[in-house]
Amino acid sequence: MHRFNDLADFSTAEIGSLLELAQRLEQYPEPRALEGKILSLLFLSPSLRTLASFQAGMARLGGGSFVISPDMSIHGIETRPGIVMDGAAAEHIREAVPVIASYGDIMGIRAFAERRNLEREVADQEFEDLAELVDVPLINMESAIQHPCQSLADWKTMDDLGVPKAGGRFVLSWAYHPRALPLAVPSTTVKMAAMRGMDVVVLRPEGFELPEPIMAKARVLADASGGTVTETTERAEALEGAHVVYAKSWTSTRHYGDKVGDQALREELIDWCVDEPWFATAQPDCRFMHCLPVRRGVVVADRILDGPRSVVIAEARNRMYAQMAVLYRMLKG
Amino acid sequence: MHRFNDLADFSTAEIGSLLELAQRLEQYPEPRALEGKILSLLFLSPSLRTLASFQAGMARLGGGSFVISPDMSIHGIETRPGIVMDGAAAEHIREAVPVIASYGDIMGIRAFAERRNLEREVADQEFEDLAELVDVPLINMESAIQHPCQSLADWKTMDDLGVPKAGGRFVLSWAYHPRALPLAVPSTTVKMAAMRGMDVVVLRPEGFELPEPIMAKARVLADASGGTVTETTERAEALEGAHVVYAKSWTSTRHYGDKVGDQALREELIDWCVDEPWFATAQPDCRFMHCLPVRRGVVVADRILDGPRSVVIAEARNRMYAQMAVLYRMLKG
Amino acid sequence: MHRFNDLADFSTAEIGSLLELAQRLEQYPEPRALEGKILSLLFLSPSLRTLASFQAGMARLGGGSFVISPDMSIHGIETRPGIVMDGAAAEHIREAVPVIASYGDIMGIRAFAERRNLEREVADQEFEDLAELVDVPLINMESAIQHPCQSLADWKTMDDLGVPKAGGRFVLSWAYHPRALPLAVPSTTVKMAAMRGMDVVVLRPEGFELPEPIMAKARVLADASGGTVTETTERAEALEGAHVVYAKSWTSTRHYGDKVGDQALREELIDWCVDEPWFATAQPDCRFMHCLPVRRGVVVADRILDGPRSVVIAEARNRMYAQMAVLYRMLKG
Repeated sequence: MHRFNDLADFSTAEIGSLLELAQRLEQYPEPRALEGKILSLLFLSPSLRTLASFQAGMARLGGGSFVISPDMSIHGIETRPGIVMDGAAAEHIREAVPVIASYGDIMGIRAFAERRNLEREVADQEFEDLAELVDVPLINMESAIQHPCQSLADWKTMDDLGVPKAGGRFVLSWAYHPRALPLAVPSTTVKMAAMRGMDVVVLRPEGFELPEPIMAKARVLADASGGTVTETTERAEALEGAHVVYAKSWTSTRHYGDKVGDQALREELIDWCVDEPWFATAQPDCRFMHCLPVRRGVVVADRILDGPRSVVIAEARNRMYAQMAVLYRMLKG
Repeated sequence: MHRFNDLADFSTAEIGSLLELAQRLEQYPEPRALEGKILSLLFLSPSLRTLASFQAGMARLGGGSFVISPDMSIHGIETRPGIVMDGAAAEHIREAVPVIASYGDIMGIRAFAERRNLEREVADQEFEDLAELVDVPLINMESAIQHPCQSLADWKTMDDLGVPKAGGRFVLSWAYHPRALPLAVPSTTVKMAAMRGMDVVVLRPEGFELPEPIMAKARVLADASGGTVTETTERAEALEGAHVVYAKSWTSTRHYGDKVGDQALREELIDWCVDEPWFATAQPDCRFMHCLPVRRGVVVADRILDGPRSVVIAEARNRMYAQMAVLYRMLKG
Repeated sequence: MHRFNDLADFSTAEIGSLLELAQRLEQYPEPRALEGKILSLLFLSPSLRTLASFQAGMARLGGGSFVISPDMSIHGIETRPGIVMDGAAAEHIREAVPVIASYGDIMGIRAFAERRNLEREVADQEFEDLAELVDVPLINMESAIQHPCQSLADWKTMDDLGVPKAGGRFVLSWAYHPRALPLAVPSTTVKMAAMRGMDVVVLRPEGFELPEPIMAKARVLADASGGTVTETTERAEALEGAHVVYAKSWTSTRHYGDKVGDQALREELIDWCVDEPWFATAQPDCRFMHCLPVRRGVVVADRILDGPRSVVIAEARNRMYAQMAVLYRMLKG
């Protein structure tokens, strides 16, 4: 296992084996498993959970890690190829990435989308370009279109809670947020739930359709696992019988890279804030999931987040165990 | 031991046992004692000694740690309860704290006072609210009114130097500083010296009285230990026979939260800078203590800080050993 | 070995032994060698490679480390001696350094030159002043005039590649850069190559002569090792038969501390960008070296940096192994 980038690169048996390993490491600590091994962490975008959970997880296995972000280099890091560097930046990503990689046995990179060119970002071109500079095992810590660690943690969280696979209804719902957010989490989540064999419903307003290549991939995955993937704008229809409501805001794909157009569409949708009435026809124990950070009173009502439906802290905690399994598998096989 | 928050929560026997453990870990390292254990460090206020000494101490015991501060989250962390988060902050402390806690076996939180409401801050309400979100052992790394790690280190420093308990005269002196500083260190210090059985004198100008609930608590502690607690504005009276001068600036309690009033009172007090003449009638080997950081030439003269009376570096170093004892006791019993 | 500051403090036999140790630790990891030991890292100037490689190297040997920079203290750290601290800074370097040192078994300090007084900076007065405050083994992580870790790594890199010692021609070439950069790397490099017994040529425009005390020291070292040290402004003459071109920009010593004068001289020298024609009469396998960060298209052409001559990533990686040897030797003898 040399790359952990797209859950769809793995069979469900391989994912199952990773989840078993995560469970085992949660129950039976192995504090010397990765002794002397180093994880290089490069954050080109901000982080809290990922930063904390990778450092904690690596240390729980006896390994070490270090963190680099562009503000640590003098005047920042240049990313544009072929440029004459006579401006502010004193270092180019083409040196920074292989150097940082060279100090570790394994590397994690986070690089959010710039949200300018949808096709390029669905192809994850920026992350792929960075990945080419790395010759150690590489973990995607969230790129333009992938967030596999989040989805592996979410899968584990549903397993821990006994949320059904076949016949389990998973509603990925768009939610209001004052800013246009990346597509990585919803795109990865729809594929994850499809791979898990669930009946996946993407509930989103007009103009917020997920990119068609992502939906197509999710349908292929669902076909293989016995699940289904549908999409709708109708809340009541979507939520009937739901086992999980997974809320997430994302940018308008119709107005991708166009802040004004996105904003105009978005400001009509302030009622897309998940609250108790949403769950009227859902399963009685329907869960509320979110990858965090979440805006209270905007994406979801306080009473949901603070109530028994919410499993957001368990999801965050499972980030650590899921990542420990990935680190262990990549470094020890 | 599930909380390390207020020295007064412990008996002097319990403190004595912690100090013995600190001494033992200083002399006989145990580099695998906390193998596989993780300390989560949340700094809502800046830090140097605390940041360094907790990381170093945990690593000396074979454990790991990670550091989170609000600037690591996207656009900062919201702390106001019940708010609709449609402004800058993208994450609420109600999620951030339990998530960070969930990655560790033990947690430390630093959160300075806002200096707005004295009663609320003497009750340490903000820290108590945060503590309710944490379900692992929790260490107070300085709150509005507590700094127990500093006081445990100071106690150890006095023990190391043979400063007498019964009959030892401990002068906590206010000092000039251009800004209004929190009450945590003086409030914790007066209780610590009282618990240690010393004759404690709080020397401060009019308007800088420590909060009465703190003084009352200190007197109760002194009664139990055989010490005494008094206060005065008279420098000569306070310092006669002193074994320790512990300098610290703090905000005016008479003008609490009123910067203009505090400043007017303070600017007359520029001569409250500890210097050699202060020690004229003190014990010949009277020590100078300060928690650091300290402003040279403002709080204390260079010749005192650079001279033989000063034990400030020993105090800072003992932060690490005191905290190692706390970590060890909380995680291993 | 209590200080690692100037390569010239060591005999070539001692350097050889350090390089053997670096090689051994690269090939045969010792993940418990420095168990329970702590490295304190103080960065008074920004860093990427040094920050990452010291943390990674210490962890590979089983030790721990922590990082402090001035922005972690409240309102920064004051460095001026004897000052009355009634301004912004709340902490003085005279307390900060010994406190940080006290938490570790070994310390690293980085403090760039202010580029104001050449004589003072050639004497490395600022670093020497800081070093006096430290009573544990101390590593210079780059000061005004020293960068011994870089040079030890470069020496190892040349050994790894089989670059000849006696008879090897080492060209240290000035290169264009929009800003005036410190003298530490070129000053240390010329001494290193001289100690290695090479024929060292310093190629630089008029006005960019290295300080005479540095050149004199390099000549003494070359005399002892059987090498030579010369300097020239003539590129063709310098590069004939070169085994290594080591590029680096530095400030004009003729206009030291005078930004306007330096800039006027510098802006005529934009063609000092290393490119393939430079290598016409060099050895066919002549290597390109640089300490990084490097400005692409300014200091060196992309095709050199991305081509087979470049060994800059190997140099950066060897920082870690060279420093592991230094840490090991200082802590274990």
